Amino acid sequence: MSYYELCNEVAEAIQKAVSGLIGKPEAGVTLRIGADGTPTEKIDEVAENAALSVLEKDGRSMRFVSEELGEKRIGSKPEFTFVLDPVDGTFNAVNNIPFFCVPVAIGGSDLSDIRYGYVKNLVSGDVYTAEKGKGAYLNKRKIHVSSVSELSGLSVISYSYRPHVVAINNHKVRRVRVFGCAALELCYIASGIFDAFIDMRSMLRVTDIAASKLIVEEAGGVVTNGNGKPLSTELDVTKRVNMVASNGMVHDKLLELV
Amino acid sequence: MSYYELCNEVAEAIQKAVSGLIGKPEAGVTLRIGADGTPTEKIDEVAENAALSVLEKDGRSMRFVSEELGEKRIGSKPEFTFVLDPVDGTFNAVNNIPFFCVPVAIGGSDLSDIRYGYVKNLVSGDVYTAEKGKGAYLNKRKIHVSSVSELSGLSVISYSYRPHVVAINNHKVRRVRVFGCAALELCYIASGIFDAFIDMRSMLRVTDIAASKLIVEEAGGVVTNGNGKPLSTELDVTKRVNMVASNGMVHDKLLELV
Repeated sequence: MSYYELCNEVAEAIQKAVSGLIGKPEAGVTLRIGADGTPTEKIDEVAENAALSVLEKDGRSMRFVSEELGEKRIGSKPEFTFVLDPVDGTFNAVNNIPFFCVPVAIGGSDLSDIRYGYVKNLVSGDVYTAEKGKGAYLNKRKIHVSSVSELSGLSVISYSYRPHVVAINNHKVRRVRVFGCAALELCYIASGIFDAFIDMRSMLRVTDIAASKLIVEEAGGVVTNGNGKPLSTELDVTKRVNMVASNGMVHDKLLELV
Repeated sequence: MSYYELCNEVAEAIQKAVSGLIGKPEAGVTLRIGADGTPTEKIDEVAENAALSVLEKDGRSMRFVSEELGEKRIGSKPEFTFVLDPVDGTFNAVNNIPFFCVPVAIGGSDLSDIRYGYVKNLVSGDVYTAEKGKGAYLNKRKIHVSSVSELSGLSVISYSYRPHVVAINNHKVRRVRVFGCAALELCYIASGIFDAFIDMRSMLRVTDIAASKLIVEEAGGVVTNGNGKPLSTELDVTKRVNMVASNGMVHDKLLELV
């Protein structure tokens, strides 16, 4: 089974498992605090269990890193790390806001060593994929970042207050949006709908961004931390990072803003 | 034909007319500058023409106020003003981001004198309605604003930089979102999914907010300008306002933030 097939099987199992919970208040009931330090809601647990069940049947040995359970070794000699956010955009899913997804990354032991990225939009069914060195794809069609090079023309997704200040008070960028689903928002950078993504809250987990980081890079974009350095951290759900992702043409100007 | 039926017929005509344009780059081609001072894109014109055609067949005389054409008198003795944004969330619609709607308000000559509000979510088909003094409804079921009373628990939709500062840097509110579709975002305040909406850019038009203002108020919420005064302005697409809408329990605290 290829990486694509494995990711797809996991995403489909999650989609089926949570389908009855979308827009339902009971889906948002907090069960406990998860391994990542944030509440595990019912929909998260249902989704993670569905994924685990697929991975345990796969037969390969792997390290499974996931938001709620933290880390679990499957088999005795892990061939790779399988990094999952069972549902990215839980608040949206619980409240029937059509913006949530399943992101999966396959790699070694560090965020800088991801070899395959997969994000499935659970509303539209769109699938974004990237294999290291082989480009990024939306539903198997090649995608590329935008070519906007002026700040004044930028459509930015931002969880950082400075861009809001400049956008809203000084009209220095064209638009700012905040959808509450980082993995999918980053795919909009890869496909050129938005030009940049900024999150300076020191809140992003590897499970949120590992897949989409590779997808943005393979689509021709640039991803760094808030200081302009390459993003690197262990594939561990307790780690938190800042992130600036862009089409590459405005990256330095954005780093000055944040 | 009741107000509901008239609004619904207009929204359905728009939905049919634009269905082939969602997610298509040609839908976003700028045709000219509209009466509201912003670009008229192809999808806006197609939608407005579909609405006009329904209204001209209705038989009643009315003043039609709409973003692209500005104002048009239908018949000789207007019984009411029909206020329309043919598509609210044009950027989303053109880019296949599932968050756009048709808002319609029926009233006299001022934003403070709206007697009927109707918003149709063009993705899910959900319909929000309110008649002055008779409550607010989602798909004909009564809705009510949330009861969150502490800033730290608030889910806020905000186009104002101060809440971003406090939320992102000081974690004083729980979450901030920006979806880019004011009419529908306000309906999320009415239905209690979000607790407050703030837009201090002085960019909101009566066509964006007239319907949803009544829907929020009839759902038990409070709507003012940024100074805490009642919102009042002519039903004219060139007018721009600020707005703070909330569940009422945190309104004063929000006014201090903006």
